[in-house]
Amino acid sequence: MKRYTGTIPAAYTPCLPNGDLDLAPIPAMARMFAEQKCPAAFVCGSTGESHSFTTDERKAVAAAWKKHAPAGLDVIVHVGHNCQREAMALAAHAKEIGAAAVSALAPSYFKPATPKDLVDFLRPIAAAAGTLPFYFYDIPSMTNVVFPADRVMKLAAEAIPNFVGLKYTSSDLMRLQSCLAFEGGKYEVLFGTDEILLATLALGIKGGVGSTYNYASPVYRRIYDAVARGDHDTARREQLKTVRLVEVLLEHGVLRTGKAIMSLIGHDCGPIRPPFAPVGKEELAEIRRKLAPLDIFVSPIS
Amino acid sequence: MKRYTGTIPAAYTPCLPNGDLDLAPIPAMARMFAEQKCPAAFVCGSTGESHSFTTDERKAVAAAWKKHAPAGLDVIVHVGHNCQREAMALAAHAKEIGAAAVSALAPSYFKPATPKDLVDFLRPIAAAAGTLPFYFYDIPSMTNVVFPADRVMKLAAEAIPNFVGLKYTSSDLMRLQSCLAFEGGKYEVLFGTDEILLATLALGIKGGVGSTYNYASPVYRRIYDAVARGDHDTARREQLKTVRLVEVLLEHGVLRTGKAIMSLIGHDCGPIRPPFAPVGKEELAEIRRKLAPLDIFVSPIS
Amino acid sequence: MKRYTGTIPAAYTPCLPNGDLDLAPIPAMARMFAEQKCPAAFVCGSTGESHSFTTDERKAVAAAWKKHAPAGLDVIVHVGHNCQREAMALAAHAKEIGAAAVSALAPSYFKPATPKDLVDFLRPIAAAAGTLPFYFYDIPSMTNVVFPADRVMKLAAEAIPNFVGLKYTSSDLMRLQSCLAFEGGKYEVLFGTDEILLATLALGIKGGVGSTYNYASPVYRRIYDAVARGDHDTARREQLKTVRLVEVLLEHGVLRTGKAIMSLIGHDCGPIRPPFAPVGKEELAEIRRKLAPLDIFVSPIS
Amino acid sequence: MKRYTGTIPAAYTPCLPNGDLDLAPIPAMARMFAEQKCPAAFVCGSTGESHSFTTDERKAVAAAWKKHAPAGLDVIVHVGHNCQREAMALAAHAKEIGAAAVSALAPSYFKPATPKDLVDFLRPIAAAAGTLPFYFYDIPSMTNVVFPADRVMKLAAEAIPNFVGLKYTSSDLMRLQSCLAFEGGKYEVLFGTDEILLATLALGIKGGVGSTYNYASPVYRRIYDAVARGDHDTARREQLKTVRLVEVLLEHGVLRTGKAIMSLIGHDCGPIRPPFAPVGKEELAEIRRKLAPLDIFVSPIS
Repeated sequence: MKRYTGTIPAAYTPCLPNGDLDLAPIPAMARMFAEQKCPAAFVCGSTGESHSFTTDERKAVAAAWKKHAPAGLDVIVHVGHNCQREAMALAAHAKEIGAAAVSALAPSYFKPATPKDLVDFLRPIAAAAGTLPFYFYDIPSMTNVVFPADRVMKLAAEAIPNFVGLKYTSSDLMRLQSCLAFEGGKYEVLFGTDEILLATLALGIKGGVGSTYNYASPVYRRIYDAVARGDHDTARREQLKTVRLVEVLLEHGVLRTGKAIMSLIGHDCGPIRPPFAPVGKEELAEIRRKLAPLDIFVSPIS
Repeated sequence: MKRYTGTIPAAYTPCLPNGDLDLAPIPAMARMFAEQKCPAAFVCGSTGESHSFTTDERKAVAAAWKKHAPAGLDVIVHVGHNCQREAMALAAHAKEIGAAAVSALAPSYFKPATPKDLVDFLRPIAAAAGTLPFYFYDIPSMTNVVFPADRVMKLAAEAIPNFVGLKYTSSDLMRLQSCLAFEGGKYEVLFGTDEILLATLALGIKGGVGSTYNYASPVYRRIYDAVARGDHDTARREQLKTVRLVEVLLEHGVLRTGKAIMSLIGHDCGPIRPPFAPVGKEELAEIRRKLAPLDIFVSPIS
Repeated sequence: MKRYTGTIPAAYTPCLPNGDLDLAPIPAMARMFAEQKCPAAFVCGSTGESHSFTTDERKAVAAAWKKHAPAGLDVIVHVGHNCQREAMALAAHAKEIGAAAVSALAPSYFKPATPKDLVDFLRPIAAAAGTLPFYFYDIPSMTNVVFPADRVMKLAAEAIPNFVGLKYTSSDLMRLQSCLAFEGGKYEVLFGTDEILLATLALGIKGGVGSTYNYASPVYRRIYDAVARGDHDTARREQLKTVRLVEVLLEHGVLRTGKAIMSLIGHDCGPIRPPFAPVGKEELAEIRRKLAPLDIFVSPIS
Repeated sequence: MKRYTGTIPAAYTPCLPNGDLDLAPIPAMARMFAEQKCPAAFVCGSTGESHSFTTDERKAVAAAWKKHAPAGLDVIVHVGHNCQREAMALAAHAKEIGAAAVSALAPSYFKPATPKDLVDFLRPIAAAAGTLPFYFYDIPSMTNVVFPADRVMKLAAEAIPNFVGLKYTSSDLMRLQSCLAFEGGKYEVLFGTDEILLATLALGIKGGVGSTYNYASPVYRRIYDAVARGDHDTARREQLKTVRLVEVLLEHGVLRTGKAIMSLIGHDCGPIRPPFAPVGKEELAEIRRKLAPLDIFVSPIS
């Protein structure tokens, strides 16, 4: 089975100024990701404002990414939805368009009561994707569905033939180790909290899916490279830059700030959808001022 | 403006054994609600597994209720959705079919950061319903969007012309009083936690929307009547029966148990959708055994 | 067994400007409570900054209250402590000084894993008080020990001979009903959330322990009286005044503001202890301005 | 300033079968720690059931450790307490007995509202320890006091002359990096979640304080050694053993199981104090069975 290494951007979903979906920026974003040697794009995930788009819009986004992805850039489609049947439709669509893989998170309005209920929810979604690899996307901070990830992994491995691993956006690094070790490392774990990547490389992580990989992949490449050559001081120094980045994201709102940053690197993704407040000109200028000193971006932002 | 008094069932959404939507039971449910003197049915809400149905399914459910509701039974359509545009489509549809009112809860995967962000999210949804009365549905235990309800009410009153009040499913009875008193009681508050109704009648509540009103409205009518004649002992005794009911619901899972109870009173609503586990025959028999002694149901259940 | 009706102030613990314990104001406070027809004072509880005082200080406070309480004013001593042995010492002391009853909350740094563990923790504390009546003080918002209160009540009734009831500072009004009904109402429930008292009178509550009873007992007497004569409009209007009060408390910090209010009614209790910030002159003036219009206080505050 | 490297056991506090404090096992424990090359013992912390012992008992424990600690084994005394004045007394006592350093956590019944309120609470405690180094002990999972640790560090560095760093028992590895980098690494950070130590060594951690260091320091020494020679596979394999250990701890209750394990390695610490249930013979046998295969202990446990 294919394994991913390095930075997989969780792509933003571009909008027109009126909030309508805007597919136009996708080709250039896809080219940029390919140039950055990203092995794949993870589309329609949390960063892509999944739950804020209609099912038809999400299909259109996935199709546009698949159509414009240069050779070498896989398209992984997030199909998670509170409604299992919508998720199944999205998974079937991902299969049709030839996506590389699908992923789904837990339903979060109605919450599964047990890990088994969760896997029972996921099974038909994974099945709808046929033989595409299926990743469970664990993000308890957003879903409030908090189960030991290794327990979910075990149940999913038993019940879902195309289960291949996890997108792991959880702070539980104990369970992460258990997942990485499960059945001799048979399943992949893509880590999802960019600003602590270095800690997880030590535990055996090889690649990650994250929002800051959209615009700051160079700093992460330097982290991977430093670790590979045993230069931990450099790795820490570079990772610390991402901590400074995330401080700004937290201060202004992670998702809305991240999407606004895209405009600063020449890939304007337009406004964020409600319930998030748009980033106005003045706030954007302030964000730019705070970020300009950080040497982490794909292209200069000042 | 119209005000509701008494019990408004938050209707279950019927399914076929395979989980497909089943509109067939709706007419009889609507007649039963009318016979029970319920002033309205609240459809496609949490009890109706809102987030587990597609937008098209939700439209079909709302239309069926509107078509089959006897004179005197209003249909209030819950149109809340994580995706504002889906919610707007549902609200526009509710207007088209001639619903009596619409209601929407807060988005809960992506959460508004402030009460203002919440009201900005709701405004276009309410607008899509035209002049239909709009209720904000506050249910922080499910959404984890926890704002002072009176603050939201004030902002909504300013920003949303057709805002008429709240469906209040929160345990914060301090803010409830503030909402009831806001602008001299200009806005309606429908209470949503059936098993403590009596406590809120003392604060000025006149009616409620709840799941147990589907099958147990007689006990609540007795509570309203007892309060009206100042017979608090009877009111407490009757309310205590609903506490015993809810103990069983909590033990077996509120939503899945409630939907299963419908089959015990002759209005089989079929299985619940994932992520909830279905109630099997043995568990149903156990639930029936536990509930049979309670004198609260629309029709005998043993 | 004795039952309490009406308002039992959870007394503030007075301090000198340097933060040292100050017993001097206690006699006047005790007289004021007696004049207000309060049946008891609940001392060294949360309002009394229990956990911020040493065991010796808490003994001194309890002894001072007992010594100065006029006839008719019972002294209930809160002896809860994270350390069971400290709590036992406080309970034994309460017995020695002739307190009317003792109460203890759950340990909250180390938390019991089950209701049984909680009752096993409480049992020796209650035993140390000999035959004094023992109340379990349930306040999950502070302790994060969240068990169904009726379950704890049942276990305590079985295991603790001198268990007489609960001080109930929880928003769970469903379990409250179950507690009130347990064994035919054999156990007392004193309600602890003053600003929703009216809701709980409807459920059968007869009296309460709370912080605002220190300075605002008149408004609560009017509520009790209005309910007794069936005048619900007055009861709601009066209860609403306490909602306005609590809005100010919430805005400035409940405990620190409440203690500061004591100085506004002529019973200066001095500064609050860390970790709360003291209320300075300007903030006190602002609090006074906000509260002055409320007609609820023992004595004029402007 | 002195820096610690390696494993600092957060020592259990021994009790007699009746729950009374038992100082007798301390000398042998101290010798064992010294033999294991532990640079210090952290006494009267969470693992030492801090909040379950009286102030006098805590002083006796600290004094016994100081008296019996072999040369080379520092004694760091945890003096945190909900009551600031008790904490100050403990800090003054630690100074008197010649402890190497003191540490205190946040008050957790009454919680500071801001980082400044927290530091204002800590300042007099640190001052009471004179010139002894002072560590803030951040453990939000227990205290529910959740502030950005780097913000607390900055304020503490400004306000507390003898502030030297943190005992960091938080899962927030982003803020950890910021703390490690603060003022060029001027302050020490001792990590407190043993089972993810490896992740934090990558971020710059040099030593930790933890409960499993009481009985399993050999496995951690192998982790430190493997990392030092760049053998990450061995490091992961060894760390994974501790994950298996912690799974057993979580299953049976972390603190009560850990204390019981001491009896399995020949340092019986007696029963745990309430509110934790004691570990009976059968459960102990079951724990032994589960742990025996793990090659991590100071001495054989089967």
